[in-house]
Amino acid sequence: MPVNAYAAMNKGEKLTEFKYDPKAVESQEVEVKITHCGICHSDVHLIDDDWGFSAFPLVPGHEVVGIVSKVGIDVKRLKEGDRVGIGWQSDSCHECEWCDKGEENLCNQSQPTCVGRYGGFADSIIADSRFAFKIPDALESENAAPLLCGGITVYSPMKLFGLQSHHKVGVIGIGGLGHLAIQFAAAMGCEVTAFSTSPGKEKEAKSFGAHNFIVSTDEQQMENETNSIDLIISTATAEINWTQYLNILRKNGKISIVGVSPGTLDIPPILLIMGQKSIGGSGIGGNPVMREMLEFAARHNIKAKTEVMPMDKANEAIQKVRDYKARYRMVLKN
Amino acid sequence: MPVNAYAAMNKGEKLTEFKYDPKAVESQEVEVKITHCGICHSDVHLIDDDWGFSAFPLVPGHEVVGIVSKVGIDVKRLKEGDRVGIGWQSDSCHECEWCDKGEENLCNQSQPTCVGRYGGFADSIIADSRFAFKIPDALESENAAPLLCGGITVYSPMKLFGLQSHHKVGVIGIGGLGHLAIQFAAAMGCEVTAFSTSPGKEKEAKSFGAHNFIVSTDEQQMENETNSIDLIISTATAEINWTQYLNILRKNGKISIVGVSPGTLDIPPILLIMGQKSIGGSGIGGNPVMREMLEFAARHNIKAKTEVMPMDKANEAIQKVRDYKARYRMVLKN
Repeated sequence: MPVNAYAAMNKGEKLTEFKYDPKAVESQEVEVKITHCGICHSDVHLIDDDWGFSAFPLVPGHEVVGIVSKVGIDVKRLKEGDRVGIGWQSDSCHECEWCDKGEENLCNQSQPTCVGRYGGFADSIIADSRFAFKIPDALESENAAPLLCGGITVYSPMKLFGLQSHHKVGVIGIGGLGHLAIQFAAAMGCEVTAFSTSPGKEKEAKSFGAHNFIVSTDEQQMENETNSIDLIISTATAEINWTQYLNILRKNGKISIVGVSPGTLDIPPILLIMGQKSIGGSGIGGNPVMREMLEFAARHNIKAKTEVMPMDKANEAIQKVRDYKARYRMVLKN
Repeated sequence: MPVNAYAAMNKGEKLTEFKYDPKAVESQEVEVKITHCGICHSDVHLIDDDWGFSAFPLVPGHEVVGIVSKVGIDVKRLKEGDRVGIGWQSDSCHECEWCDKGEENLCNQSQPTCVGRYGGFADSIIADSRFAFKIPDALESENAAPLLCGGITVYSPMKLFGLQSHHKVGVIGIGGLGHLAIQFAAAMGCEVTAFSTSPGKEKEAKSFGAHNFIVSTDEQQMENETNSIDLIISTATAEINWTQYLNILRKNGKISIVGVSPGTLDIPPILLIMGQKSIGGSGIGGNPVMREMLEFAARHNIKAKTEVMPMDKANEAIQKVRDYKARYRMVLKN
């Protein structure tokens, strides 16, 4: 039976119905009947070939949740009927130092779910079983789907920093990633400050667990935050005044960039030396961190706030993402 | 008895003989008869008031080694006759969170040895006993003096990174700081690569323990180092092509800046995100790290390579530092 999917046939085009014959399920693979798929901003970047490595026809979708329908003969971790999620990464080499260490996201042969293979805007998908993660029972599929990319992307920098409950965390940008970052940091016991250009997001940011809300275009409010935060996670994709946020960092603090902002860091080195500060970046995370993140989300009832639309409304849903009107994550449902 | 010192009476001036009456030794203080004092580039910056906070008359010198000659009534850690060293920092508040944690270098009330008090180009100095560090017997005074500022400055970023013996370390700039960084990293069991604009420094860099030597102006050599190093410590004070060094970092790698380079970092955020890299800075270190560094240096026979001159040749020695002709650290001796 062919897979029923939605694909951009060429760069920048609207999606159209697209059928393809699935390959056989190999020994380490599983077939998953997709129930839900979140829409990440990077799906839009892929459709538009903004990063120059898209392959068309392009079936977007890398926040997949569904039910295992077939398992390869060597698969031990999963069985038919298991509910699983698949994120940005679908495979790695399984034999390099990074794979050895459970940092598969750093593998040079990391394979994205939607590039060179067909993604989750479809009724089924075949994936390596090591990149199909059991979804804890406590999580609803529609809320869990965005955790597979958005969730891991904001959880990882907290791990990399060695975040502890006494730390103060800032989150720049209260969107698909930011609203999850607030929830994770608050659940870890941290004091959380949300930074947004939209004053109207204060109430919701606080409902996600933010203790403080700063309008980042308000110079005085920003000035008042000087030397107040240990870890700032930047999820914004707009240009950022990095020096302003460096001043907001406490000593030993770090800015972790997960949103691809334009421009350059434009920071004089002395500002890092004074106060022993750093600035780093990361995308997604390794498989052990993914499993930990899902368990943590289940334990603390962390869920993406989603707007669900049927899969055949994919174009309409993508347009809301393009228009920054998703509150906070669009999820397609079969 | 007055202290016999050498001071710049005004910004940028040559040093002249300068006598001052020492204050009384307070309860937590010690008086130290100075035998040796290293010359750090920051002494030159202070003389020239490059950072805008110098106070004149300015007695430079913050790599002091000498013998305790008086102890305050509350001093328990030191006694008369002890050989001690004093670095960049001479006091802190002793009651903030950073002092509590042994990160006195981050204290807001950190007091530099040569600003608002008279430094080590003199025959004696009074310092808080908590910032006078016993010099292990195995270290010669002239080689130990530069450890008090130069040594701690390059040792700290290794601690902050969590450097382990399997890591590969790069050192940019083979001068007063860099030649110590090579020795520390090699003694920790790491593979060390020296980066220098001076091909003539290869032999000496290797004598300090560098396994590899790269001429940083040679594009091909730099290209060959892509993805090879975990921690790069930049001691250079010249402008740096940060993007080039980011490419040399392995995944999870960090650039630690300890030399005050001009310009800005000028890095597109995506380069940090790809490969989970970071860039940070630090100056000196806390008191526990200072003690650890001195013990480690003694255990591994790490010593500054010095050129010793008598204290009354201070101007001549400073000129060699200004001309980048010190190999690798000028030390004044009484």
